[in-house]
Amino acid sequence: MALDTVSTNKCFGGVQGVYRHASAETGTDMVFSVYVPPHAEGVKLPVVWYLSGLTCTHANVTEKGEYRRACAELGLIFVAPDTSPRGDDVADDEAYDFGKGAGFYVDATEAPWSKHFRMESYITRELSELIAEHFPADMERQAITGHSMGGHGALTLALKTPDRFKSVSAFAPIVAPARVPWGEKALTGYIGADRAAWRRYDATALIEDGARVPELLVDQGMADNFLAEQLRPELLADACEKAGIPLTLRMQEGYDHSYYFIATFMEDHLRWHAERLGS
Amino acid sequence: MALDTVSTNKCFGGVQGVYRHASAETGTDMVFSVYVPPHAEGVKLPVVWYLSGLTCTHANVTEKGEYRRACAELGLIFVAPDTSPRGDDVADDEAYDFGKGAGFYVDATEAPWSKHFRMESYITRELSELIAEHFPADMERQAITGHSMGGHGALTLALKTPDRFKSVSAFAPIVAPARVPWGEKALTGYIGADRAAWRRYDATALIEDGARVPELLVDQGMADNFLAEQLRPELLADACEKAGIPLTLRMQEGYDHSYYFIATFMEDHLRWHAERLGS
Repeated sequence: MALDTVSTNKCFGGVQGVYRHASAETGTDMVFSVYVPPHAEGVKLPVVWYLSGLTCTHANVTEKGEYRRACAELGLIFVAPDTSPRGDDVADDEAYDFGKGAGFYVDATEAPWSKHFRMESYITRELSELIAEHFPADMERQAITGHSMGGHGALTLALKTPDRFKSVSAFAPIVAPARVPWGEKALTGYIGADRAAWRRYDATALIEDGARVPELLVDQGMADNFLAEQLRPELLADACEKAGIPLTLRMQEGYDHSYYFIATFMEDHLRWHAERLGS
Repeated sequence: MALDTVSTNKCFGGVQGVYRHASAETGTDMVFSVYVPPHAEGVKLPVVWYLSGLTCTHANVTEKGEYRRACAELGLIFVAPDTSPRGDDVADDEAYDFGKGAGFYVDATEAPWSKHFRMESYITRELSELIAEHFPADMERQAITGHSMGGHGALTLALKTPDRFKSVSAFAPIVAPARVPWGEKALTGYIGADRAAWRRYDATALIEDGARVPELLVDQGMADNFLAEQLRPELLADACEKAGIPLTLRMQEGYDHSYYFIATFMEDHLRWHAERLGS
């Protein structure tokens, strides 16, 4: 699969790149960023996927995530996809929490969204193959994390494909989209009115239905405006306790929903993943 | 002097704030950012000033500079001013390298610029007093650094007020504005045709004319597009050698002019300043 380089910049001894390709899954051009740390020629490196939140593109975490220093030290490739298909032909909604910038990491089944909004297949199949083909990536050693909507994406993708990801963590994730306004709106729109069909896009429902991961790390700011209504980490804690999944849930006093919160705890997450990836 | 808080976010245990005030020097509202690291009640902390480059506001380094982790560890306050006055009443030029976003840290003497473009006095007098008044800053322990045009600002302000700044460093600074296109254009516009009057806004000329600092740290990317024509670190090296100023000039292979370069070496600079500030 062909890949165009939008930009590359040397940073912390490695290369921060931004790339564009024509996606067969979404039927659009897609842009993503990859940081490759300094490494010896011929070595294959473990991969951390970072899924972004509502309104974001690859650029938010690339500019503000402060992950490169730790990735350089730990020898981790860091992949940041976009959050939805883009372009004039792509259906959209005026709200910030649905349509472009709000793909919710699902394969939409409802018109008009089903034509382009195939972010689950895009990330787990097409982009994954592209990363394996074009970067020095050891696809046997993958981890996944994300923020807010992207935390939902990380948790659900890991729960659905436990063999693919050796570890999973999240920053302020939407843990139960079927039970909060952001998720109810998005899943109704993308997947339809049948709530049974939503369960595979809801981390707590997946755990209730038997999906498992070895353990979870979640950081949540206690000054996060979305905590009580949209994020509800207690629902994940309940589901993990019943299922016997070890959850490290860290409630961080004074931190909000911004990249200032993410950047503060990014290194902790990367070290946690590196240990589990053997990096 | 009154100060409005635009935003505050907890980050690395401290507070990243953005503030606005009515400036008497520039006759405009001015916005700047300050990071205050975690600290014990009543303690006064040393201050690092960071002056930004062409086209920037306080926001570029605040979002992309990756300084907070090291400032939190080292106990440094980090102040990032804007690069010019702003507003509909302020004279401007269509080019990116003159007028708004390009104040060059001078007090302009030529019309129409002299009315608002008083960035030297703004930073060294008014903003300095504001920082002392509103933040837990030990003004006896100040350091200064900056990037490109802001590197020029850091070097010239430190050379002109050696008692004020205990240490000075720069990222890819314009070291001899009187001898490069960016500087010739700006100094002609702001200061006028008399090149003798430019010398107090040119780091190498200041050193030739007898100004001294104890030592200098400069990082310069070797893949920087502006290196040969606009930055010319060899002119600073010559001036420092003749004057006996110890200059640590690090030519960094593969690095460009971007914040990816700055972020990579930010921690080195902060550690260098912290040592000299006794932090």
